Amino acid sequence: MADTTRPFNFSAGPAILPQEVFERAADAVTALRLGGHQADAPSIGLSLLEVSHRGAPYQAVHDRAIELAHSVLNIPKDTHQILLLPGGASMQFVMVPANLSRSGQSSSFVETGAWSTKAIAEARHFGEVQVLASSSESKFNHIPSVNWDDAEGSSFLHVTTNNTIFGTEYEDIPQTPEGVPLVIDASSHIGSRPMALGRAALGYAGAQKNLGCSGLCLVFIRRDLIDDPAAPSAPKFLKYATHAKANSLFNTPNTFGVLVLKLVLEWVEAQGGVEVMDRRNKEKSDLLYDTLDNSSLFAAHALSGHRSRMTIPFTLDGAPESDRDTLTARFLEEANDKGFQGLKGHRSIGGCRASMYNAFPVEGARALVSFMQEFERRA
Amino acid sequence: MADTTRPFNFSAGPAILPQEVFERAADAVTALRLGGHQADAPSIGLSLLEVSHRGAPYQAVHDRAIELAHSVLNIPKDTHQILLLPGGASMQFVMVPANLSRSGQSSSFVETGAWSTKAIAEARHFGEVQVLASSSESKFNHIPSVNWDDAEGSSFLHVTTNNTIFGTEYEDIPQTPEGVPLVIDASSHIGSRPMALGRAALGYAGAQKNLGCSGLCLVFIRRDLIDDPAAPSAPKFLKYATHAKANSLFNTPNTFGVLVLKLVLEWVEAQGGVEVMDRRNKEKSDLLYDTLDNSSLFAAHALSGHRSRMTIPFTLDGAPESDRDTLTARFLEEANDKGFQGLKGHRSIGGCRASMYNAFPVEGARALVSFMQEFERRA
Repeated sequence: MADTTRPFNFSAGPAILPQEVFERAADAVTALRLGGHQADAPSIGLSLLEVSHRGAPYQAVHDRAIELAHSVLNIPKDTHQILLLPGGASMQFVMVPANLSRSGQSSSFVETGAWSTKAIAEARHFGEVQVLASSSESKFNHIPSVNWDDAEGSSFLHVTTNNTIFGTEYEDIPQTPEGVPLVIDASSHIGSRPMALGRAALGYAGAQKNLGCSGLCLVFIRRDLIDDPAAPSAPKFLKYATHAKANSLFNTPNTFGVLVLKLVLEWVEAQGGVEVMDRRNKEKSDLLYDTLDNSSLFAAHALSGHRSRMTIPFTLDGAPESDRDTLTARFLEEANDKGFQGLKGHRSIGGCRASMYNAFPVEGARALVSFMQEFERRA
Repeated sequence: MADTTRPFNFSAGPAILPQEVFERAADAVTALRLGGHQADAPSIGLSLLEVSHRGAPYQAVHDRAIELAHSVLNIPKDTHQILLLPGGASMQFVMVPANLSRSGQSSSFVETGAWSTKAIAEARHFGEVQVLASSSESKFNHIPSVNWDDAEGSSFLHVTTNNTIFGTEYEDIPQTPEGVPLVIDASSHIGSRPMALGRAALGYAGAQKNLGCSGLCLVFIRRDLIDDPAAPSAPKFLKYATHAKANSLFNTPNTFGVLVLKLVLEWVEAQGGVEVMDRRNKEKSDLLYDTLDNSSLFAAHALSGHRSRMTIPFTLDGAPESDRDTLTARFLEEANDKGFQGLKGHRSIGGCRASMYNAFPVEGARALVSFMQEFERRA
């Protein structure tokens, strides 16, 4: 049915997931198993896609996904509630200010790339926005330094903790002033390393990178924020309180997406947790960054000390400008022919990008750097 | 792997889909095939879940789903654009007034059940709402008559064309005054019969009933409404124009949901289209309504002439009131043991409900009515 040799998939998202997740998800589409699709449990005789989100077979999937998100990702259960919402990060760019903006207060943002810029634009519909710092003038090649105290008095403070397009990353969730709720968009590195997610009052991550497939967003929110009486009036569907009260069953959730989330988190747990992901991701990204830093053809976009382990944009800037585009196109074409897929850079920055999420194998990173070195010798 | 004898699945949604859709969707989760998962085409070597929504393999799925929605559902291409959006109908309860409400104008609704009531509540966040007619006082057991001219001057007129919980249905899309955009929520009967969908200026349907799985909403919108300069200012993500301009790729769509939509529409087309669905749905619902009308134990909730073919709530109102709850519980338990699943009525109305969507087999309807007749003889 499927090929046995798969290409190395560097797609930025939807992105590579573990092979066993694909197999088990396909099995659940054929027929869901008892106990929330526990391996080797008997089938319920119906597909996951055709069962009610209010029936026991799906509820077991839903509850287990939430439980695993707390334990595997280290989202503290006593202080934070997890929500499983439709859409991805783009929808949270609206829900965050719709819930957290406060009359007479501005919101604060750090602008670290295209996704922060989009979040800022949406927040302006709900009130004043203060940009504390931006690395826009240097093509977002670093995380700008911020005096966090400048956020004092803001209704919330928003940080994009990994920047998919420009390849920068906060190594951990920043410690910010206590009175201002910290909001993080951790879409493209959640689960990739141990992180103090509990420092965020609200966090979100589109699932289609490290957590599962598209059309689902993992949100976690500090319990005191859910029913804040100072919250603005908003349509019921856009309020976190609505989904929190209903345990994310206010409307029909993306039931397939939730199952895939559960399967991915079970896989991370079985591999040894985020600590093991951390070690593997360091190994993979070190291989690539070392190659980039020792090359006279290839160059990393992000500055040392600010670099993402997940999403690594690079260029062929060592080539003379007149040849650069041709050489880049040739590199991407040859790479593709050799089974390195999804290496083309985002249209806003050009060049190349290697996204190496949790499920991406270290052999893939080794194979890529060998090919790059060999290409450089020929070029 | 899966059981070969499946129960009869009366679930209201997520709901039964054709067996071959489950099989082909599972196949795509293992490995997507060329040409948008054309049967027997070679695999691309990657799962549908891990490929970019901007790459050719997924684009073929996306474009084909939209093309089929136009042709199979008869949504006129010259006047209307199709959008594939996250969430379900609940999210449209917000997007509709966020886009169509006009300053100084109220919006008009016909209240035909719980879903209309929810849509009305959300619309009130965006301006005055006028309820043209309601059947709330008779437990929504009929479609109230409306003088459509009362909607004149409204920013839009909203009708729920099939009412999942109370089991009523508009036989076709009503002809309403030309100057007022008609908006329909056709979630639970779209594709079940030929319908003049082009009469609606905007229509939407959560996919998890007749169109696919949860987490995806099919929206169609008249092209002149997309960029109406009188539209209110709204966050970019909530504007139809945003998604229309990007052909529903403004953000990452629910790629799996779109594939399932495509597979379902291909199945409807191969079966002979909505005309064939119409004939089968009439046969199935006639079987059940005839049984209900000829029973002294069972009774349909909806009045004759207003009845849905898709979602049929019924009670055991022929039983003495003192026994009714016990007898209902016994009926549901015995039915479940015999493999009739999902017959429990919605909590807001009680009793039983048989949802018989397109993929539900006529044998299931025959088996159910035999069992009901046999149960009645014993009761």
